[in-house]
Amino acid sequence: MSFDKNKTKFLLEERDIPHVWQNPAADLPSMAPILDSTTRRALGRQELTSSMAPELAEQELSVERDFEIPEAVREIYRQWRPTPLHRARRLEQALGTPARIYFKNESVAPTGSFKPNTSVPQAYYNHLAGKRGLIVETGAGQWGCAVAYAAALFDMSVQVFMVRVSYQQKPYRRSLMETYGATCIPSPSDTTRAGRSILADRPDHPGSLGVAKSEALELAMADKTLGYARGSGLNYVCAHQSVIGQEAIRQMDIAQEYPDIVIGCAGGGSNLAGLAFPFLRAQQLGGPKVRLIAAEPSACPTLTRGRIAYDYADAMRLTPLFRMHTLGHRFIPPAVHAGGLRAHNIAPVISRAVEEGFMEAVALRQVDCFEAGVLFARTEGIVPAPESTHALRAAINEALRCKAEGRAQTILFGLSGHGNFDLAAYEQYLSGRLQDDSLDDAAVAHGLASIPAVELA
Amino acid sequence: MSFDKNKTKFLLEERDIPHVWQNPAADLPSMAPILDSTTRRALGRQELTSSMAPELAEQELSVERDFEIPEAVREIYRQWRPTPLHRARRLEQALGTPARIYFKNESVAPTGSFKPNTSVPQAYYNHLAGKRGLIVETGAGQWGCAVAYAAALFDMSVQVFMVRVSYQQKPYRRSLMETYGATCIPSPSDTTRAGRSILADRPDHPGSLGVAKSEALELAMADKTLGYARGSGLNYVCAHQSVIGQEAIRQMDIAQEYPDIVIGCAGGGSNLAGLAFPFLRAQQLGGPKVRLIAAEPSACPTLTRGRIAYDYADAMRLTPLFRMHTLGHRFIPPAVHAGGLRAHNIAPVISRAVEEGFMEAVALRQVDCFEAGVLFARTEGIVPAPESTHALRAAINEALRCKAEGRAQTILFGLSGHGNFDLAAYEQYLSGRLQDDSLDDAAVAHGLASIPAVELA
Repeated sequence: MSFDKNKTKFLLEERDIPHVWQNPAADLPSMAPILDSTTRRALGRQELTSSMAPELAEQELSVERDFEIPEAVREIYRQWRPTPLHRARRLEQALGTPARIYFKNESVAPTGSFKPNTSVPQAYYNHLAGKRGLIVETGAGQWGCAVAYAAALFDMSVQVFMVRVSYQQKPYRRSLMETYGATCIPSPSDTTRAGRSILADRPDHPGSLGVAKSEALELAMADKTLGYARGSGLNYVCAHQSVIGQEAIRQMDIAQEYPDIVIGCAGGGSNLAGLAFPFLRAQQLGGPKVRLIAAEPSACPTLTRGRIAYDYADAMRLTPLFRMHTLGHRFIPPAVHAGGLRAHNIAPVISRAVEEGFMEAVALRQVDCFEAGVLFARTEGIVPAPESTHALRAAINEALRCKAEGRAQTILFGLSGHGNFDLAAYEQYLSGRLQDDSLDDAAVAHGLASIPAVELA
Repeated sequence: MSFDKNKTKFLLEERDIPHVWQNPAADLPSMAPILDSTTRRALGRQELTSSMAPELAEQELSVERDFEIPEAVREIYRQWRPTPLHRARRLEQALGTPARIYFKNESVAPTGSFKPNTSVPQAYYNHLAGKRGLIVETGAGQWGCAVAYAAALFDMSVQVFMVRVSYQQKPYRRSLMETYGATCIPSPSDTTRAGRSILADRPDHPGSLGVAKSEALELAMADKTLGYARGSGLNYVCAHQSVIGQEAIRQMDIAQEYPDIVIGCAGGGSNLAGLAFPFLRAQQLGGPKVRLIAAEPSACPTLTRGRIAYDYADAMRLTPLFRMHTLGHRFIPPAVHAGGLRAHNIAPVISRAVEEGFMEAVALRQVDCFEAGVLFARTEGIVPAPESTHALRAAINEALRCKAEGRAQTILFGLSGHGNFDLAAYEQYLSGRLQDDSLDDAAVAHGLASIPAVELA
C-alpha cells in the first residue's frame, strides 16, 4: 500500500499496546534515595510497602530497564489504547509555519486524559494486595476521575479529596467521579486532622495538591483496608506513563518522521515523563538527538524558579523526603485553571533530567496558553485541557521560531487531555475575565523558605 | 497475522473513509414529495434552492443510490474518521448475557457526537454557494457545536438558537460553541417575531426544537448572505450520516461477525438512519436479515404514538410539509435530558422504513436509560450522551432477552455521542432527583390535533 501523503492520524492496533513499561530511572544517573523524614535514612522496599502495594514498591526502587505489563492491565488498556497520533495540519496552516506539528492524543481515554495509564495498574496491584478501596487526592479532577474509573472495573470503593478551587470550577468532574461510583470531598475539608488544621489557619484556603495529598494520606494511613493511589511524582507512575512515548515512537515511524522537539506540560511530571523518556532512551541507544521541553505555568514555576533539594511532596509533611525541584512544600500557587499543574514539586526523574541537561524547561502565562487552546479548537476541533495548552503553547512558540528561521523542524507535543470539563475557564478567557496568574517574589520566597535543610545526596 | 480473540476495538484507516454517501431514499419505495404549505404542490429543486445550497437541494430530491463525497470534506473527516467500533466486553460480562454487544463510537468526533458528519458538508456547500455565515437551531447543543466547529474551518460566522431548557441544563455546550467562535441565543428569544409571539403566549416556555427552528429560519430567510443548516430530518442529512453504517459494516467484518440487531436512538432520525440504512441496503442486496430498532423516549414517542401525516417540521409553520410520523407541530414534550430526541416529527426516511416494516420502534423511560448509562460508564468507561442511552438501553434489553432465551445473538448499537456535557443530568439521576418524564394523554391529543388536514400521497 502506498504512503498516504495527506494522512492525519497514525493508528496502531491493540496488539501494538506495549508489553512493558519503561523505567525512567534506568535512563538517568543513579537516582537519590527517598529519605525517611525523621531518621533521614533511605527508605527500602519494606518501608515503602507500608503505603503501597508490594509490586509498586518494587518498581519504585528498581533500576531494571523494563517492567512487564500484567495481562489483566493490557486487557483494560484495550478499551482506549493505543491512542492516536495526529498531525495538526490545519494548525500548521493557520500558523503559516514550515514546521510539522504532531500531537499524541491521550484525550481519547475514557476519562479524557492520560491518567488511566497508571490508575488502572495501581487499582490492579492494590486489588491484588487485598485492598477493598482506594483513596486519592486530585487537582483539576483528572486523577480522581481516572481512579474512579479504574476502581469501578475492580469493584473497589473510592474516596477523592479534590482541591477546593477546582471542585468549584469544575463541578462536572465531580459528577463524573460520582457516575463511576466514587465519593468526592472538597479539600481542605473538616474530615481530617490535616484539613481542620489548615482551615483553622485560613478558612478560605483555595486548597492545593499538597494539602489534598495530606488529607488523603492521613485517612489511608488510618485504615489498612484502603490503598493510597498516586497520580504523579513517583518513578513507577512515570514508568506506567511510558506507554505514551513508546507508542508515539512507533507512530512517528509510520509517519516516516522523527521529532526534533518533544514537548509535554509539566505539573507532577508523569505525563511529560511518559512522553519524553522513551525518546531519551532511544537517543541513548544511538537514535537521533531530540530536544525535550517541559512546559510549566509561570504561576507555578517549579523547574524554572524552584531549587533542587530534598523536600516533602505534601503541605503537611506526611510524605518522606524526595530529591527534586521544589518551590517549597508551603508554596501556594495562584488558582490558575491548569489545576493539574499546581504542584510545588515535580517528579524526581524529571528533575534529574533537567539537572543533567537532558531536558529544558519553559514557563508560560495562562492567557497565552488559552489563546493557543482557542486556536487549536478552531483548527483541529479538539478543546485542550488547560494543562495541555501549556504543551501546545510551547509547540506553537517553537513552530513560530521555525517560521522566523525558515526551518522545517518536526515538533511533537503531548495532548494530555481534553478540556470538555474546563469550558468555564475558556468562557472566562473569551470574555476577558481570566484571573491574573502573576506570582510575586514574596510568594516564591515564602515557599522556598519552607524547604527543609537536608544535605543533598 | 492471526485473529486477536480479545480484540476490543475495530479500526479502519483514513483511506477507508467512505468515498460516497448512501442515499437512504434509494433504499425505500418512492418517497412522498415535500409540499409547499400554501399551494400544497410538490417542491422542486428550484424552490428548495431558495433555502439550501444547490448541491444539497439536488441531494434532497435525488433517487440516485450514492453521492460522491467531495475531497475537501473527506480531508476534514480525517480529523476523526473512521471512528472505532468497540466490543462492549465488560458490559456483556456485567449482564451475564451470551449476546455479543458492539457499539459504533461516534463520540470521538471533535464535538463529541455524530453531528459533524453532516455539519462539515453543509458548511462546505454553503461556503461554495457564497454564504458568509450559518444559522441553526439546536436542542441539547450537539448540532450547534458541530456547526460551530465546521464553520470555523471555513471561516464562516455562526448564530445558534438553543432550546432554552438545554441552554440552562448544559452551559458547557454554549461555552464550546463560543470557543469555536459562534454566538448562542436561548430560544424562544425576543430577537425574532416567532420567538416574541411564543413568549407572549407563554413566558416560561421551555423551548423545543420546533420553536428554535422557527426562529433560525426566520432570520435566515431575512438575510440571504446567511445559510440555514439542518441537523436532522432531511434526506441529505440522513445520507451524510451513512458514513457511520458503511464503516460499521466493514468493521463488523473485521470482527468476523454480522449483527442480528442494529439499534439507534431516534430523535430527528439522522443518527439512526446513518447507522441502519447501510445494513438495510446490504440486506436488500442479498445480505443477512437484520432487525433494525429505533429507540425513542417515552416522553416524545413520535414513532410509537404519532401518526403518519403531512406536517410542518417547526412549531410556527415556516417549513414546508413533510410526510412523516408526527405528534403534531404544537406538541411540547416534557423537558427530558435527551434534548436531541425532543422532536415532534422524524425524518421521512425513518418514518417510511417503519411504515414499510423494515424497522421497529420502542419507547423507553428516561430513568431506565440513565440506569443503563451508569452501568456503561462503570464497565466500558464512557459516559454516554442521554440521547445515546436510549440505544444502549434498548441494546441491554435485547441482551437480557438473549440471556433469558439462551441465545448468543450479535447486537450493534450506535453510541451517537458522549455525555461529558450532560453530567448534571447524571447527577440528578444518581441523587434520585431526575424529573418525571411521564406524558399525559391530553398532551398527546393536543399535539395530534395540530396536524393539518392534508391528503397523504
